[in-house]
Amino acid sequence: MPAAVGIDVGGTKVLGVLLNEQGQVAAEHRVPTPSTADGLVDAVVAVVAGLGGSGHPVGVGVPGLVDHEGCLRFAPNLPGVVDVPVRARLHDALGVTVVVENDATAACWGERERGAAAGADDVVVVTLGTGIGGGVVAGGVLQRGAHGFAGEIGHMVVDPNGPRCPCGKRGCWERFASGSALGGLARRHGLGDRGEAVTAAALRGDPDGVAAMAEFAWWVAIGLVNLAYLLDNTVFVLGGGVIDAGEALLGPTREAFASLLAGAAHRPPVSVVGAALGERAGAIGAALLAGAAGAAEATGAAS
Amino acid sequence: MPAAVGIDVGGTKVLGVLLNEQGQVAAEHRVPTPSTADGLVDAVVAVVAGLGGSGHPVGVGVPGLVDHEGCLRFAPNLPGVVDVPVRARLHDALGVTVVVENDATAACWGERERGAAAGADDVVVVTLGTGIGGGVVAGGVLQRGAHGFAGEIGHMVVDPNGPRCPCGKRGCWERFASGSALGGLARRHGLGDRGEAVTAAALRGDPDGVAAMAEFAWWVAIGLVNLAYLLDNTVFVLGGGVIDAGEALLGPTREAFASLLAGAAHRPPVSVVGAALGERAGAIGAALLAGAAGAAEATGAAS
Repeated sequence: MPAAVGIDVGGTKVLGVLLNEQGQVAAEHRVPTPSTADGLVDAVVAVVAGLGGSGHPVGVGVPGLVDHEGCLRFAPNLPGVVDVPVRARLHDALGVTVVVENDATAACWGERERGAAAGADDVVVVTLGTGIGGGVVAGGVLQRGAHGFAGEIGHMVVDPNGPRCPCGKRGCWERFASGSALGGLARRHGLGDRGEAVTAAALRGDPDGVAAMAEFAWWVAIGLVNLAYLLDNTVFVLGGGVIDAGEALLGPTREAFASLLAGAAHRPPVSVVGAALGERAGAIGAALLAGAAGAAEATGAAS
Repeated sequence: MPAAVGIDVGGTKVLGVLLNEQGQVAAEHRVPTPSTADGLVDAVVAVVAGLGGSGHPVGVGVPGLVDHEGCLRFAPNLPGVVDVPVRARLHDALGVTVVVENDATAACWGERERGAAAGADDVVVVTLGTGIGGGVVAGGVLQRGAHGFAGEIGHMVVDPNGPRCPCGKRGCWERFASGSALGGLARRHGLGDRGEAVTAAALRGDPDGVAAMAEFAWWVAIGLVNLAYLLDNTVFVLGGGVIDAGEALLGPTREAFASLLAGAAHRPPVSVVGAALGERAGAIGAALLAGAAGAAEATGAAS
């Protein structure tokens, strides 16, 4: 694979990596996430320059609905960024192969190729952050859907009479099982108002912390069970800030998953593991996708 | 494609078709569903004979978890049928290429190749019967999952505090949106105890019937929305007995789907249509899969 740049656009930072021809992270660079579409393109260009990555294929993971042309159609957490042709604008600015994907889709590919799900052909990556993002590999193929919008699992309805979601609907999974939801559990269990407090309390064995984490893990597992029925995957990779809790989250999630899965006796077990690439997963996945696209274009140009 | 036999094993009948080399249904034959594993194999053999189909590849759709070796691991509606190597036993009995798939997976392939979703690459078929079955085509590829168990969508949890399901869990989608659930709605709306009464009342414009059907359609749509988020498909094909209601079900389902889908303004519309192949969908899909497998084996043998 050629060297390639991968960039993950998050809610607060734009994180880039340069993968060398051996696929190793040769450089890392980050800048704050800008608030406008123009700023977003400029920030990616700046990160490429900061990495010394000019001339290499560039992959970008962005949070939102990205179509097959690399146009960011809608990004709930980047207000003012609607219908931005990110791929075309970066291609004009950089003159190289550019791939733009949903951030969780890119992270899924990173974890599947280099991380916690390396070698597995049926993988779901679930990112528990402000909301919940998802990426799916099925039969070894990264799933994008008809329009590039596959894996938007945070708004899966798990309780139609549940609390209102900012999306306008009720009872979305991310109301119960995102990092933000963990903050709500902290309040209800008298642990302050931040999810980190639940994690800390659970890790030190505080009964309120353990109870809050068990409730959170149960809601995480509700969604995982729904995904397993549909996809019959062999591994779930959980990412996002809350995975800092490690086994304090993964243990109760595995228990709840086993108790909630119908027909479990007739199904091979499904692994539930933490992400291995951390905050770099999306950038590494995007770089791998860009490298592959660059190699394919070079082959096509030569033939 | 070579001529091929397709057989759908239902809760009450085993229905077979013979597809000729032009892919047309040249014969149809049915026998009652037996209650034992031995009876099941014998019934399929009898249907092949009844169709005049000996010597042709045979595809069989069965209701339950079918692994990649064609072993029926578990079939909730066929008590006593557990861990039956259906493919191996039929291959021994018939001496031809045999393919065994989950019935809804086979029906999905039938509808995608010859029915209501012909030509579409991202399709979900949802069969609303005693329970809810599902089949998925993504990127033009029939999805089977890591173990052959993909598409088991009836037990997707849509209300964790909802009614107990025979599977042992709570609030499964099929408690609300299967043909059986429509019978429950009939009782609650004072329309007797059969789902058909709701359909008849809705079709003649009876307010109780229309209200019951709208409630049913809303629950159908809850599950469809969840599937659309994950899969980004372009079409849903609804099958099973309740689809006899036609537009009386499809219209309210489309309305509820539009009202429940987050970010609908940024997404291309998704079609919700009735199955076109009726009770033959599974048999036709199974025959097409068998024909393709037979052709591949012949090519492999010749090379």
